[in-house]
Amino acid sequence: MSNAPKNDRLLRVLRRESVDRTPVWLMRQAGRYLPEYRATRQRAGSFLAMAKNPYIACEVTLQPLARFPLDAAILFSDILTIPDAMGLELYFVDGEGPKFRHPVRDAASIAKLAVPDMETELRYVMDAVRLIRRELNDSVPLIGFSGSPWTLACYMVEGGGSKDFARIKTMALNDPAALHQLLSVNTDAVIAYLGAQRAAGAQVLQVFDTWGGVLSPEMYREFSLPYLTRIARELERGDDAQRTPLILFGKGNAPYLEELADSGAEGIGVDWLVELSEAARRTQGKVALQGNLDPAILYGSPEAIRRHVQRTLDSYATGNGTSREGHVFNLGHGMSPDMDPEHVAALVNAVHECSAR
Amino acid sequence: MSNAPKNDRLLRVLRRESVDRTPVWLMRQAGRYLPEYRATRQRAGSFLAMAKNPYIACEVTLQPLARFPLDAAILFSDILTIPDAMGLELYFVDGEGPKFRHPVRDAASIAKLAVPDMETELRYVMDAVRLIRRELNDSVPLIGFSGSPWTLACYMVEGGGSKDFARIKTMALNDPAALHQLLSVNTDAVIAYLGAQRAAGAQVLQVFDTWGGVLSPEMYREFSLPYLTRIARELERGDDAQRTPLILFGKGNAPYLEELADSGAEGIGVDWLVELSEAARRTQGKVALQGNLDPAILYGSPEAIRRHVQRTLDSYATGNGTSREGHVFNLGHGMSPDMDPEHVAALVNAVHECSAR
Repeated sequence: MSNAPKNDRLLRVLRRESVDRTPVWLMRQAGRYLPEYRATRQRAGSFLAMAKNPYIACEVTLQPLARFPLDAAILFSDILTIPDAMGLELYFVDGEGPKFRHPVRDAASIAKLAVPDMETELRYVMDAVRLIRRELNDSVPLIGFSGSPWTLACYMVEGGGSKDFARIKTMALNDPAALHQLLSVNTDAVIAYLGAQRAAGAQVLQVFDTWGGVLSPEMYREFSLPYLTRIARELERGDDAQRTPLILFGKGNAPYLEELADSGAEGIGVDWLVELSEAARRTQGKVALQGNLDPAILYGSPEAIRRHVQRTLDSYATGNGTSREGHVFNLGHGMSPDMDPEHVAALVNAVHECSAR
Repeated sequence: MSNAPKNDRLLRVLRRESVDRTPVWLMRQAGRYLPEYRATRQRAGSFLAMAKNPYIACEVTLQPLARFPLDAAILFSDILTIPDAMGLELYFVDGEGPKFRHPVRDAASIAKLAVPDMETELRYVMDAVRLIRRELNDSVPLIGFSGSPWTLACYMVEGGGSKDFARIKTMALNDPAALHQLLSVNTDAVIAYLGAQRAAGAQVLQVFDTWGGVLSPEMYREFSLPYLTRIARELERGDDAQRTPLILFGKGNAPYLEELADSGAEGIGVDWLVELSEAARRTQGKVALQGNLDPAILYGSPEAIRRHVQRTLDSYATGNGTSREGHVFNLGHGMSPDMDPEHVAALVNAVHECSAR
């Protein structure tokens, strides 16, 4: 499992080594925009059935790599596997996003939560990681991932998606100790989960803080940032030369880039609401930066896509002393089902061509 | 109509004069969280029927002022009255937000749009303004408002709310000239609309750029900011001593505060994702700042609300050389139907007590 992949651009950038061109992968690159994914899903029955079957998870993880010269694979799974394994019972209603049958809304239910056992309750994830690594055959690195403690807590308390996060913010105001308890057990679980994915063969690890950006700065610094930092500090990921890099992605994390750059993570993923030139200047080369094309650019023509890819690459370089090193190209958020695979091909090719050193 | 209101704190702050305490009003202060509002709505039948009947619009505008010592009234209306008057036909589906029966999605439909006549097609709004002014009897100032050109365009092109604004962003990429034409006619209409509200008696004017924050910096500076600036420059609002102040509110506008402060507007409204201390430092006293408590704080206990009010007031002062002048207290976004009127009372009282000079 310790073999370096032939295409090691992503690992090299995250270890701050030089590369011949900027590596690129796309959040939700395995997904409904691909006809072969839709066919597999029809066969499997549901998203959750796909994610819980290691063979199917492996199959769809590899689908985009068969089409596009992407520089990494990312495990096909859900950000909410941990609370599901804690007993909250994840389910999906078409067009409504994820929900939990047993949300936690008071200190008593939170006190009962425990870190799941990774090789029994979350074995299907580890089996998928092992299988994908075998099938990848050291071609490109495999990225494992988890939701962030705060983002998991949002779904666990709200019971699903939310417009205003009224329930969890009420808990933050009226019973902050209970919320900290929840965030603490989530953090322990995320550390164990990412550690187990690494042991199973994941070569890069990413935390998705999808909902950190709904918090005021005061609340972000109390309820999200410290737990991200604890993950970055406590997650065992090997010695320098072989280190498994950690990327902290956060929607709306632009105000906190200086703090995130000091968290101990190797990479920070940013959304499209900040200029990469500014992000690079503010993080001063302490971390690699991943991002940050507005996913909606994929709705544009191949020419428009190429122009915006060039602009994103140049923006990073402008803030990084004219150097393209230290940049992982990605979208600022996940892809959507109605996007055109031909446009993804145009994007990947544009990144490779426009960033060649 | 030119009589100054007895409570002129809001006007004084926006004209950068000193006040005895920080004025406060709340976005969506007339709304479903009030039982008397729900009773009126039941009688009227629908939100739109309320907004289009000047007597009812006047009644609900005044409801929160009968309960709380607020420092301003805001016209009860919708941000989408302009496109409705342009012929797009606004309607509401319960729980789904506003929709248009005839969205505009190509250059040909955009070319047909014209600025509505304010005293015929939007007469119900002007009548409401005149009626409210009469009923207010110069007690507190009346705020008129409009959606921003970009925000109107979002609804006009998408046909309703959107998660990813795919349609309008596709237009921005593939037919930017058509989108600029749409934004241009919207801007002309907003200027005429706010001018007519001023003529009818509105004493403060606010533009809501609800969706500017979904744009990348490059696209915000092309599709939202220039049109906000044109409104601030071209909207006639009288000479200095009697000037009708303009507030530009924008969700997600924190990255652009320097540019907004140079737009020519008298006030900038900000959401809760930026510290007021930072906003004040960055705008250097060029404009008054309005905001920015997370509306969810209203779910907390009265003690928690008071603590956060104090913190918000102090944050502004910290960034403004320890002075509380130049601050209009508000939420960072509108109120929600499930909020407790008692908590609103606690908020308003806390602002008044904690900010007394």
